[in-house]
Amino acid sequence: LEKVKVSIAGASGYSGAELLKIFQRHPHVHIDKLFANSSAGKSVAELYPQFRGRYNHTYQSYAIEAACTSDAVFLALPSGEAMNLAPELLKRGKKVIDLGGDFRLKDSAQYEKFYKHEHHAKALLAGAVYGLTEWNREQIKSATLLSNPGCYPTSAQLPLIPLIKENLVQPQNLVITAMSGVSGAGRSASQDLAFTEVNESAKAYKVGVHQHLPEIKQTLETLGGKNVSLSFVPHLVPLTRGILTTIHATLNNGVREIDILSAFDKYYKNEPFIRYGNDFMPEIKGVAHTNFVDIGFKIYDETNHLILVCAIDNLVKGAAGQAVQNFNLMFGMSETEGLL
Amino acid sequence: LEKVKVSIAGASGYSGAELLKIFQRHPHVHIDKLFANSSAGKSVAELYPQFRGRYNHTYQSYAIEAACTSDAVFLALPSGEAMNLAPELLKRGKKVIDLGGDFRLKDSAQYEKFYKHEHHAKALLAGAVYGLTEWNREQIKSATLLSNPGCYPTSAQLPLIPLIKENLVQPQNLVITAMSGVSGAGRSASQDLAFTEVNESAKAYKVGVHQHLPEIKQTLETLGGKNVSLSFVPHLVPLTRGILTTIHATLNNGVREIDILSAFDKYYKNEPFIRYGNDFMPEIKGVAHTNFVDIGFKIYDETNHLILVCAIDNLVKGAAGQAVQNFNLMFGMSETEGLL
Amino acid sequence: LEKVKVSIAGASGYSGAELLKIFQRHPHVHIDKLFANSSAGKSVAELYPQFRGRYNHTYQSYAIEAACTSDAVFLALPSGEAMNLAPELLKRGKKVIDLGGDFRLKDSAQYEKFYKHEHHAKALLAGAVYGLTEWNREQIKSATLLSNPGCYPTSAQLPLIPLIKENLVQPQNLVITAMSGVSGAGRSASQDLAFTEVNESAKAYKVGVHQHLPEIKQTLETLGGKNVSLSFVPHLVPLTRGILTTIHATLNNGVREIDILSAFDKYYKNEPFIRYGNDFMPEIKGVAHTNFVDIGFKIYDETNHLILVCAIDNLVKGAAGQAVQNFNLMFGMSETEGLL
Amino acid sequence: LEKVKVSIAGASGYSGAELLKIFQRHPHVHIDKLFANSSAGKSVAELYPQFRGRYNHTYQSYAIEAACTSDAVFLALPSGEAMNLAPELLKRGKKVIDLGGDFRLKDSAQYEKFYKHEHHAKALLAGAVYGLTEWNREQIKSATLLSNPGCYPTSAQLPLIPLIKENLVQPQNLVITAMSGVSGAGRSASQDLAFTEVNESAKAYKVGVHQHLPEIKQTLETLGGKNVSLSFVPHLVPLTRGILTTIHATLNNGVREIDILSAFDKYYKNEPFIRYGNDFMPEIKGVAHTNFVDIGFKIYDETNHLILVCAIDNLVKGAAGQAVQNFNLMFGMSETEGLL
Repeated sequence: LEKVKVSIAGASGYSGAELLKIFQRHPHVHIDKLFANSSAGKSVAELYPQFRGRYNHTYQSYAIEAACTSDAVFLALPSGEAMNLAPELLKRGKKVIDLGGDFRLKDSAQYEKFYKHEHHAKALLAGAVYGLTEWNREQIKSATLLSNPGCYPTSAQLPLIPLIKENLVQPQNLVITAMSGVSGAGRSASQDLAFTEVNESAKAYKVGVHQHLPEIKQTLETLGGKNVSLSFVPHLVPLTRGILTTIHATLNNGVREIDILSAFDKYYKNEPFIRYGNDFMPEIKGVAHTNFVDIGFKIYDETNHLILVCAIDNLVKGAAGQAVQNFNLMFGMSETEGLL
Repeated sequence: LEKVKVSIAGASGYSGAELLKIFQRHPHVHIDKLFANSSAGKSVAELYPQFRGRYNHTYQSYAIEAACTSDAVFLALPSGEAMNLAPELLKRGKKVIDLGGDFRLKDSAQYEKFYKHEHHAKALLAGAVYGLTEWNREQIKSATLLSNPGCYPTSAQLPLIPLIKENLVQPQNLVITAMSGVSGAGRSASQDLAFTEVNESAKAYKVGVHQHLPEIKQTLETLGGKNVSLSFVPHLVPLTRGILTTIHATLNNGVREIDILSAFDKYYKNEPFIRYGNDFMPEIKGVAHTNFVDIGFKIYDETNHLILVCAIDNLVKGAAGQAVQNFNLMFGMSETEGLL
Repeated sequence: LEKVKVSIAGASGYSGAELLKIFQRHPHVHIDKLFANSSAGKSVAELYPQFRGRYNHTYQSYAIEAACTSDAVFLALPSGEAMNLAPELLKRGKKVIDLGGDFRLKDSAQYEKFYKHEHHAKALLAGAVYGLTEWNREQIKSATLLSNPGCYPTSAQLPLIPLIKENLVQPQNLVITAMSGVSGAGRSASQDLAFTEVNESAKAYKVGVHQHLPEIKQTLETLGGKNVSLSFVPHLVPLTRGILTTIHATLNNGVREIDILSAFDKYYKNEPFIRYGNDFMPEIKGVAHTNFVDIGFKIYDETNHLILVCAIDNLVKGAAGQAVQNFNLMFGMSETEGLL
Repeated sequence: LEKVKVSIAGASGYSGAELLKIFQRHPHVHIDKLFANSSAGKSVAELYPQFRGRYNHTYQSYAIEAACTSDAVFLALPSGEAMNLAPELLKRGKKVIDLGGDFRLKDSAQYEKFYKHEHHAKALLAGAVYGLTEWNREQIKSATLLSNPGCYPTSAQLPLIPLIKENLVQPQNLVITAMSGVSGAGRSASQDLAFTEVNESAKAYKVGVHQHLPEIKQTLETLGGKNVSLSFVPHLVPLTRGILTTIHATLNNGVREIDILSAFDKYYKNEPFIRYGNDFMPEIKGVAHTNFVDIGFKIYDETNHLILVCAIDNLVKGAAGQAVQNFNLMFGMSETEGLL
C-alpha cells in the first residue's frame, strides 16, 4: 500500500500535535508539510519536545502550492480561517478534513451569530460532510470536504441520537452540562488559561452563547429526526485533556432501563470506539489518550429523568482521533488504523 | 470578653483542621481539647505541618469528661458518630455544633435510607436547628444543638430559596449538577482518592443516591414553601477545595432578569457573605479559603431556563466557616468574627 | 492609632494581589491607590474575584501626584520599572518598599549582567536596605528605600547564613536546587505558563543565569562573612504557590547535628516566622498562604554533606508577606501585624 | 511469528497496568494470566476503565501452575515478593522479568539494610542480569532472570555512566536531586498519597535512606569503573507520571562542553530511546507516555560543576517500557517493538 501524503495547516496547535502523535503509529501515512504561520521557522521539537527525533519537520507558512504536494490536508485552524483555504484545495482535487467549526453549521446565519464573523464560503456548506463517524459512515467514505465535529457536540450527540430516534426521551428541554480540560481552548498565550488562573478553580463560561450549542441542536434534529430544544452549559476544569458531559432528558412514558440499553445495542453494538452500559459510570481517565467514547446512564424516578454521562478525550475522539477515523474511511483504509 | 472554650471531636479531619485554621484568627476562642480517636497521641503538627508552632495540642481519644471542660463542642465526625455523642453533651449543658449529617434530616426514615444505617438519637431531630445562617438566624441564636448544612446543599439552597419563595421559578424538575474538590470526601486512606486516581480525571458519582439530595429537597420545601422535585448529580474534579454548582430551573411566566435580581436584593442585600449579580460568573478561585457564596445567573430564552451558578469553598461556607458563623451567633458575638 | 496610607504600583500582579489579601486583615492600613498601567480602568474584582466586595478600587495609571497622597508606596513591578519611580517618591518623602529586583544587588554591573538592562538609579543602591527581616531588623526600622528579597534567595539564605557565619559548613561549592510554583513567574499571558504546558510536567530553567544567583551570593557573603561559591538550579513544577529548596553543603570537620541545631537556636529561636528542626522535613503545604519559613536538615555521612530543605510560600515570605513584615517595622508597628 | 505467552504477577499495580498498555500495541505478545492477589476476582476494567473492551481478563490469585502456561512472567510486585516466586519459575524454565528491587543489588547485606527485610533468594543474585538496556544488551539477550532497573536509577545512571567511564567528571561527591510523580509510589490506599495531601505541595523524602541510593552507586561503579560517592535526595511533586533528575558533578580539569557531547555520541548516538544535547533542557512532558530518556546539560564555570538534567517517564523507561525493551531482546524481537 502506498502511503497517503498528508499536510496539516495549523499544525502547531494542540489538535495538530495530536494528529502528529496519532500518525506516529499510522503505517499508511507520510507527513508532508506542517503549516503554522505564527511558528514558521521553528522546529516541531521546539514546540513539542515529545516529537524530538520523531518528526524533523520545520513549521512553514501556508502556501497553496506547498500544500498541493499532499493527497489530504487537515485544517486545524482558528474559526474563520479554514473557509479561506478550503475552496482552492478542493478545486485542486485535494481532500480536506477541517477540524474547526467553519463547515459544521448548515445555516450560515447561525454560523455568523455564534462565531461572530461572516462566512466566506457558503457555497461549500451544503456539500460538506459532517464527520460524526458512527452516523455518517457512508457519506464520509466519499467526502471531499469533511467537517469534523466539535468536542462537546461529539460527547453530547452520541448518547442522545439513538434515544431521540427511538422515541425514548422527550426531545425538548434537554439539559446538557459539560466540563472540559484546558486543551479544549487551544494553544494560545492567554492570561485566562495560565496555570495560576485555572489551577484549583472551575467555572462555567459562554452560558447560552457557546458556538457548539447550535451544532448540537442541528445534529440532534438531523440525525434524531425531531425538533429539539436544549440548554448547554460548558465548564472549564483544571485538567489538560478530557470532556465529561452530563445530560438530563425526560423519559417518555413507560421507558425502562432495558429500552435504553436496547437502543444503544441497536446502533452501537459493533462500534469499535463506543463503550456503553448501565454497570459503570464513565471517567475521563478511562478515555484519556484514546479514541473511545464511554457512555453510562441512570434513571432517576422522582423526576423521571434519564441521566446520561459521556466521557471522551477532547483532543482524540473530540478532534484529531475522529478526524483520523474519518480520514481512514475517506482513503479506504481500516477505520481504526492508528487509533487502537 | 472572656474566651469561649471550644473542643473539637473529629479534629484530625479536614473540617476539623479548617476550624483550627479559622480559630487562629478568632479573638474570643480558646481551643481546649482536640479529639481524634484514630490519631490519638499524635501532635497536630504531625498531621498538619501548617499548625507547627500555632497549636501545641496532641489529639486524644474522645471522653465525655474531657469534653465537658468546654463551653461548646464541634463534632466533625463521619456520619453515625455524632448521634452517639450529642445526647450526653447536651444533657451536660454544652452547646453542640455538628458538621456532619446526623441531625440534618427531620425524617429519620430518609436518614436511614440515604445514610444506610440506623438513627440512634431520633428524639433530638425535632429540636436540632438547621444552620443555614442566612435563613435561620433567629433560631440559631438560641440553638443548643446546631446542625450545620452540607456543602452541596449550601451551594444549591442559597440561590434557589429566594426564587422559589417569590414564585419566580417552578419548583418541579430542578436540575442540579455540581462539582466538588477532593477534600469534600474527607481525610481518609482511600485508593479512589489517591492523587494518581483523581488527577487528570473527573467523574459523576452517587447519581440519584447522594445523601445531600434529601437535605436539599427538605430545605427547599421548608424554606421555599412549595413541594419540590429535583435531580442532583455530583461530580468529583481534580482540585483540593471548592464547589461549583450549576442549576437549571424553569422560569415562571413573564419573569425577567430584574425580578431575579430583586429577589436576591430582598433577601441577601445586606448579607456579609453572599455576593450575587448578573454581571459576573462565579469561579471557585473567587471563594476559595473564604466564607463567601458567589451567585451568578443567566436566562436562556430558548428553553425558558434560568441557569444559576454558585461557588463556595466546601471546607469554609460548606463546613467549618458556616459552623463558626453559627457559633458566633450562638454565643452572642459578631457573626463575621474570624471569617473576614 | 491613625492608619498608614498605602498605595501599590503594579497592583494587578500576583504580588500586588497578595499585598491586598494581607491588608484585608491589617488593622492599621488604609489602601489608597492601586496603580496598574495595563489594567487601568478595570476594577479589582474583575481581575481578582476574591476581592469582590472587599476592595472597591479601580486600577489606575501611575502618576506621582496620585501616589503622593500615601505615606508608603509598594512597588510590585517588572524589573527595570521601580528604578524609574523610586527616586521621585523618595524625594517627596515617601517610604518605598520595592518587591522587585532593582535595588537588591549593590553592584550595578552584576545587575546589568543578570537583569539584562541598564540601571538608571545607581545612586540609590548604597542606601537601599535589603529586607531580609531576620538579619537586618535594625536597619529596616529606619529605611526609606526597602529592597525586599527575592523568593528563591529568601529560601536559600535563611538556612545557610547561620551555618556559614558559625563556620559549620564550607562556603564553597554550595549546591542549591529549588522548585517553584508557577505564580513565581508573575501574572502574564505567556504560552510557557499556560495550564496545558505546565501541568503534568516539570523542568529546570535559567540554569546558571537566573537573576537570583548573584543575590544569594551577595547576601551569603555580606551576612555570612565569607567568600562563597555556589551553583543554583531553579525548577518549575505544577503548583500555584510555594518554593521548596534543597541545599547541599559540605560540613566542616567534626560538625554534628547538635551544632547545626545550636546555630539555628542562636539566631532563630525567637523568630516569629522561622520554624526549624531535625525532626521534620518541610513541605510546601506546611507554609502555603503563610509567612512561615520551614527548615529541616539531615547529615549524610558518606559524602559528609549537610542536606538542608527549606519551604516558603513564594508570594508571602518570598514577596508580599516579607514586604509587610518590613513595612510594619518601618512604621513602628508590631512586626507580625496582618501576618498571623 | 508465533506469539509469546506472557503473564504478569502484580498486574493490578501501576507498572502492571503500564505493561498492559504497552502490550496493546505489541504484535507478538499474547497476554495469558493476570495475577493480583488483592484484586482477585475483579475484572481489569473495574480497576482500569481504559482497558474496558481491550482486555477481558479477570485478576486471579497467583499460582505456579497457572503461571507456567506462559513463556515469560513479569513480576511487578512490592519488594520482598519476587524473591519468593522467581526460583520456582526459573526452575520450570520460564523467563522472569522482575520490575521490583529484589534482584538489583548484588550485595544482599545492602539489600537488607535498605529494603529492611531479609533476602530469601541470595543464590540468584549473581546470575540476575541488570536490565539497563543500553549498557547490558548482550547479557540481556541471554538472560533468564532479568532485574529491571529502578526509576530514579535509570534517570541518574544513563547521564553519568559515559562521563565517569571517560574520566570527564569526578566520581566523588556527586549530588543527585530528583523529583518524581506520584505513580512512582505505586498503587495503594495511603493517606500520604491522597490527592488532598499531594496536590499544591512538594517535599523531599527518604533523604539518605532511599533504596535506590545503593543501586545507583553499584551501577556507576560497575559500569563506570570507578569508586563513587554520591548524595541522593528524591522529592515528591504533584504530577502523575514522570521523573526529572538534576545532577551536579565536578568536571575534571580542562573538560569542555564538546567533550561531554562526544562522550554521549560515543555511547548513545544510535540508541533508539536516548535523546541528548546541549541545545535543550529536558521536560517531563517531552517524555511522558514514552520510553525516551532526555538528557541536557550545562557547565557552570564558577563552581566548575557540570549540571545534568534527565527526564524519563517513571512508568515507561523507569519501569514497564524498559522491561518490554529487555523482554524484546530476551525473545529475539526488535528492541523497539511496542515502544514507538
